[in-house]
Amino acid sequence: MRTIDWVDGAVELIDQTRLPDECVTLRITTVDELIDAIRRLAVRGAPALGVAGALGVALSGGDPDAVARLRAARPTAVNLAWGVDQAAAWLPEGREAVLETALRIRDEDIAACLAMGERGADLLTAGLLMAGPVTPDALASGGPGSGAGGGPGSDADRGLRIMTICNTGGLAAVERGTALGVAQTLHERGRLAEVLAMETRPLLQGARLTAWELARMGAPHRLVADGAGPYLLARGGVDAVLVGADRIAANGDTANKIGTYALALGAARAGVPFVVVAPETTIDVATPTGAGIEIEDRGAEEIVTLRGTRLAPEGTDAVNPAFDVTPHDLITAIVTDKRVIRP
Amino acid sequence: MRTIDWVDGAVELIDQTRLPDECVTLRITTVDELIDAIRRLAVRGAPALGVAGALGVALSGGDPDAVARLRAARPTAVNLAWGVDQAAAWLPEGREAVLETALRIRDEDIAACLAMGERGADLLTAGLLMAGPVTPDALASGGPGSGAGGGPGSDADRGLRIMTICNTGGLAAVERGTALGVAQTLHERGRLAEVLAMETRPLLQGARLTAWELARMGAPHRLVADGAGPYLLARGGVDAVLVGADRIAANGDTANKIGTYALALGAARAGVPFVVVAPETTIDVATPTGAGIEIEDRGAEEIVTLRGTRLAPEGTDAVNPAFDVTPHDLITAIVTDKRVIRP
Repeated sequence: MRTIDWVDGAVELIDQTRLPDECVTLRITTVDELIDAIRRLAVRGAPALGVAGALGVALSGGDPDAVARLRAARPTAVNLAWGVDQAAAWLPEGREAVLETALRIRDEDIAACLAMGERGADLLTAGLLMAGPVTPDALASGGPGSGAGGGPGSDADRGLRIMTICNTGGLAAVERGTALGVAQTLHERGRLAEVLAMETRPLLQGARLTAWELARMGAPHRLVADGAGPYLLARGGVDAVLVGADRIAANGDTANKIGTYALALGAARAGVPFVVVAPETTIDVATPTGAGIEIEDRGAEEIVTLRGTRLAPEGTDAVNPAFDVTPHDLITAIVTDKRVIRP
Repeated sequence: MRTIDWVDGAVELIDQTRLPDECVTLRITTVDELIDAIRRLAVRGAPALGVAGALGVALSGGDPDAVARLRAARPTAVNLAWGVDQAAAWLPEGREAVLETALRIRDEDIAACLAMGERGADLLTAGLLMAGPVTPDALASGGPGSGAGGGPGSDADRGLRIMTICNTGGLAAVERGTALGVAQTLHERGRLAEVLAMETRPLLQGARLTAWELARMGAPHRLVADGAGPYLLARGGVDAVLVGADRIAANGDTANKIGTYALALGAARAGVPFVVVAPETTIDVATPTGAGIEIEDRGAEEIVTLRGTRLAPEGTDAVNPAFDVTPHDLITAIVTDKRVIRP
């Protein structure tokens, strides 16, 4: 099953707002339909947004205004703009060339997620990963990391307990995911004890999407309210926190789903490795530090109501940043499709 | 309006599970009804539980089994057991003596909340509060703190932006609250810019109760998803985090609503004062450190459903600790009805 794909001249994607109640595929034939799907999070997740951006250019008929609006549909994930730019560069060559590029990005995402899963699982099962920061030097060097170091546990073959946030599984990419892809690989190797999935308010991607994916793969898991993450890390028994990324600045500062920074603080205090899993395309060398990453505020409605139920008194306002920035000194390692970045 | 009171031979309390949709008063005439109300959180908040425990003994007819079950209805807040014990000590003297004790506890709570509001507001508006830890020595000494130090802001009369979690207002006590009582006093003095209220999953006491109380008092406020608290602290503009407490160990470690520890980590990293506001009765000298505090797990149902709506796939399990423990080194000051405890 693919989260997003090109089928008979149109974009088809799973409407993630309907999960876990029903699994519905949308067929999208215009850029405006695609922008709407992106804004209301029918499709979301940084890698999937990269593929959506590229495929969307193939729907644009070369209209520069449509391409610009698609590129700006959501500001935080670098992958959307990147995917649009990659495909749009081929507009002068015609739609076939654009589509070929978009399908290549789709195929590369599938391969990248497989590679991240293997590399991340290798890193964690090496049993040698020590909590500690990524250094800007390590990021700049671009060289492959060793994959070994110092570690979550010493028993050779025991299963690992992983904490994660939001949804970074197949639904955030094309076939397999980033951080949850590592958990999936661990599960396939018989090395996953359990995933502790943060529910991820306000939109509950953890409760709705990650729990759905983990159930489908038969992997043991429990949900956790977002506020409880740091406390469960302090209480012990978690081997690693694995998160995705929407944008990684040149110094390693990482924008990801709101709540990620709190887990990073909790992991640092508890001495639990905190690992970012993301494709190389998420690294934005044009942004020097996290301070330069625009953070989308999605408005009060997502906070004061939930699936039609009002949660707070009428007229209550809210602050609703969709992402936060985790400083690089709280990140133990960044696993990409090409390398492990660590001190 | 009182959250809980003794009226014509029975306990009357506001059913907080029905807020903010409707404000309904329950009339309770037996210990079992009261235990049910406590367990389903119709009445909650450490000070209110102390009063409920004491009034409940007056309903018990001296039945030792009923008194014991009431005392154990919720394990984390020390005030419930304390209130029961205070009143039960007068059982040999008869029901009138028990009731007199319970009403004295009610009146003392009203006075204590007023005193905490004044003392906390004095501390914050002194503009001299520096972020930093409470020391065990300071707690053991029992002497009043200075209330001055180094602080949230230097402009003499500007309003303060306060972050808080759960509900610690009048609904958590009898008439006024603890941490939110300080915000109320700041508001009455014209010194409150805004309250940022964590929504407080899973039961949304922030969204349902704190927003309702702040709207009634005309105080500016916005809701925040729990995961966003540490990030908003990092982004700046918050003058202090004010929280209540369910139990304070002898060394200052503080059990409070789940999510409190995450805010304490965020406040420490951002250099924002983190202040616990609680009556002296919340200090449990019989518990040396936070490691000795029993943390109630309230089961998966509160996480996977919300007001009748299913949030996760059928069969999804959850971890649901209702409280966490904030180590004393992350606490800047503890404000009680009698003193300010700081280094």
